[in-house]
Amino acid sequence: MNEITPPPSLGPDVEQVVRDSFARQGLMHHLGAEMHEVSRGRVSIRLPFRDTLTQQHGYFHAGGTSAIADSAGGYAGFTLFPPGSSVLTVEFKINLLAPAQGDYLEAIGTVVRSGRTLTICQLEVFGVTAERRVLVAVGQQTLMCMHGKPDR
Amino acid sequence: MNEITPPPSLGPDVEQVVRDSFARQGLMHHLGAEMHEVSRGRVSIRLPFRDTLTQQHGYFHAGGTSAIADSAGGYAGFTLFPPGSSVLTVEFKINLLAPAQGDYLEAIGTVVRSGRTLTICQLEVFGVTAERRVLVAVGQQTLMCMHGKPDR
Amino acid sequence: MNEITPPPSLGPDVEQVVRDSFARQGLMHHLGAEMHEVSRGRVSIRLPFRDTLTQQHGYFHAGGTSAIADSAGGYAGFTLFPPGSSVLTVEFKINLLAPAQGDYLEAIGTVVRSGRTLTICQLEVFGVTAERRVLVAVGQQTLMCMHGKPDR
Amino acid sequence: MNEITPPPSLGPDVEQVVRDSFARQGLMHHLGAEMHEVSRGRVSIRLPFRDTLTQQHGYFHAGGTSAIADSAGGYAGFTLFPPGSSVLTVEFKINLLAPAQGDYLEAIGTVVRSGRTLTICQLEVFGVTAERRVLVAVGQQTLMCMHGKPDR
Repeated sequence: MNEITPPPSLGPDVEQVVRDSFARQGLMHHLGAEMHEVSRGRVSIRLPFRDTLTQQHGYFHAGGTSAIADSAGGYAGFTLFPPGSSVLTVEFKINLLAPAQGDYLEAIGTVVRSGRTLTICQLEVFGVTAERRVLVAVGQQTLMCMHGKPDR
Repeated sequence: MNEITPPPSLGPDVEQVVRDSFARQGLMHHLGAEMHEVSRGRVSIRLPFRDTLTQQHGYFHAGGTSAIADSAGGYAGFTLFPPGSSVLTVEFKINLLAPAQGDYLEAIGTVVRSGRTLTICQLEVFGVTAERRVLVAVGQQTLMCMHGKPDR
Repeated sequence: MNEITPPPSLGPDVEQVVRDSFARQGLMHHLGAEMHEVSRGRVSIRLPFRDTLTQQHGYFHAGGTSAIADSAGGYAGFTLFPPGSSVLTVEFKINLLAPAQGDYLEAIGTVVRSGRTLTICQLEVFGVTAERRVLVAVGQQTLMCMHGKPDR
Repeated sequence: MNEITPPPSLGPDVEQVVRDSFARQGLMHHLGAEMHEVSRGRVSIRLPFRDTLTQQHGYFHAGGTSAIADSAGGYAGFTLFPPGSSVLTVEFKINLLAPAQGDYLEAIGTVVRSGRTLTICQLEVFGVTAERRVLVAVGQQTLMCMHGKPDR
């Protein structure tokens, strides 16, 4: 089955499970990342600019860009997993398209294909200011569903 | 030309330029990463374990693993660039092979092919304790040399 | 510049240059691939099923899927290149989502970001029958524009 | 377990199973590819140059390069799988380092990490003549072991 036919609305529990898991990611907290939107098969994470997130030219470091892209994709996949499972990133690939700058970065993970064992996500990261929203990175990610291994 | 034939020893200036650039990466400092070894076409970076670097299960977050892998590869390429240039990550792909755990992670970037415009690196990340050194991630990275745009 | 703002219509010459180049690809001819649609920043290629294209289970081999995906992306990028240039694939990554089967495969390459030196494309491959059109692979590709090196 | 500790020698059956499976790949036969060496966790495939394998400049098309790289990696993983299973490529990424030319290409797939469900391989492709052996592509691949689904 290749088409994802999500129920019309997301139950409150799935979102809470996702947000609780995100809150346990020390790195996301340390970077200052915030989970923005959670829907079935799609999650966005925002990362406000700070000097502690830069590379040598003063832009966001690709490591920060990648970190929120990976988390956004991982949780997007997780929203479609059965109860009592957890998510593992198998691999991801990311192209950095433009200098990662802006008031904040927004990473969006979207499930492209959800299978019993493996889930594939598309990753996008935007650099956002009041005036502009620029695509700064695109990626592709493979996730694994760990059945019977709860996230907590 | 596919083979890299480095001079027998690395001049002190190249290493200093690399270490100075690394010192300007706010994110590396914020994560607690340290540049370990610098040689021509090969750079290693260490990331000691901290609670601020975790994902939801308490291991190193893939974002931290990726961040030091990306920096290690970027600086490995940079060691072979001409004076007055800087380095840009075009893309990278990383496979997470095993839970990223240990006293510290060590990322090693090694140049596979160095061209005028593009440089390709292999990325490896190990989870290290006093007893074990486990390969936890492997990756592949494409860099671009920005001629005439000094790093600083 | 991140947004692609193509002219409203594709001139006849660009399409002809693309189709002529495709006709010189011995492999595409050998596989039986046909260039389908050509527009600015987007090219599709079809590959009818033959026994000579299979892997060990009788589906299309990933090598065929990848070959037409790579060519579709490469030519999609090429449509946006300046006169007198040619295209080189730097790298691509492809996820195989489902068994590649159908009367034919259709690969679609779409430019995501077009720069002076590098162009990034999204790759999609569908398995098509009279009744179904199933996404069987997605990929991401980096191309290089070779200025002053004509394709022919 | 990250280290692969292969038995000192490869039994004749595993090699035969691999070679029989390869012989059923219509595409490999159609391209003229030959399985060269088979050992535990490592397989090489050769592809002699033909006009039917070219891209528009007369070099090997990346599709051919990728096809033999994918098969070499897939069978390298397969050599470590349990009886009665088969292999599926989840994804691969390949960097094209130099024009793919020579009397033949040789793709080598090597297992980096073999797990119960997923196996990760490194891919290398060389362009070979009587005088030179040039690395023309490197890649990384994720395979899935299909337990209880025999290859034939």
